[in-house]
Amino acid sequence: MASAAAPERLISADKVKGTEVYNASGDKLGSINGVMIDKQSGKVAYADMSFGGFLGIGDRHHPLPWGMLHYSAKRGGYVVDLDPKLLKGAPNYAPEDKLDWADETWGRRVHDYYGVPPYWI
Amino acid sequence: MASAAAPERLISADKVKGTEVYNASGDKLGSINGVMIDKQSGKVAYADMSFGGFLGIGDRHHPLPWGMLHYSAKRGGYVVDLDPKLLKGAPNYAPEDKLDWADETWGRRVHDYYGVPPYWI
Repeated sequence: MASAAAPERLISADKVKGTEVYNASGDKLGSINGVMIDKQSGKVAYADMSFGGFLGIGDRHHPLPWGMLHYSAKRGGYVVDLDPKLLKGAPNYAPEDKLDWADETWGRRVHDYYGVPPYWI
Repeated sequence: MASAAAPERLISADKVKGTEVYNASGDKLGSINGVMIDKQSGKVAYADMSFGGFLGIGDRHHPLPWGMLHYSAKRGGYVVDLDPKLLKGAPNYAPEDKLDWADETWGRRVHDYYGVPPYWI
């Protein structure tokens, strides 16, 4: 096994679910509830995050643009270079709510909030 | 809700799991067990398929390059333009086997078999 396709380059979506997320300093922020796939490009668009009470955010779900997450083999989880304070005002929804993931206005708000380009551009 | 991001452009990986797969003629081929994500590009690399006894293939799993699958809202499932006979000799593994998804030689064989470019290029 060699070169281009590094070992563990692939991960099953099932395994992403439940994976922990840390900030750059190594503090655990939360974990991933699931991933949303863009059917058109075949790219993962969002990681749906739970911050599990971190910063008093409670168990509301926070969709993060997938490109913000970087896998760290050392930590065995994803790292997001994000000021935890920024999460306080970040777009979120209650698990019991039905979120319209395809609503472009909402999607734009999420991407603008984190300052990353939308997945559909 | 408008323009660029069409409604239902996004699907959760959880929902892809179990979705049925048809050929171009509308015959049900099987269903999706799960998806494998390329951590580097953020793209879905494979759909792991079960053909559930179709053509006597038994319940062995067949990884299909994700780009081969096209979602059909009409059918409520994915359509693969694939001669079912081609599946008979296609790369597969038993569910109880531990497949090394990152093995490039194996990955290349899968992509070569279906005549599509590897996800890592």
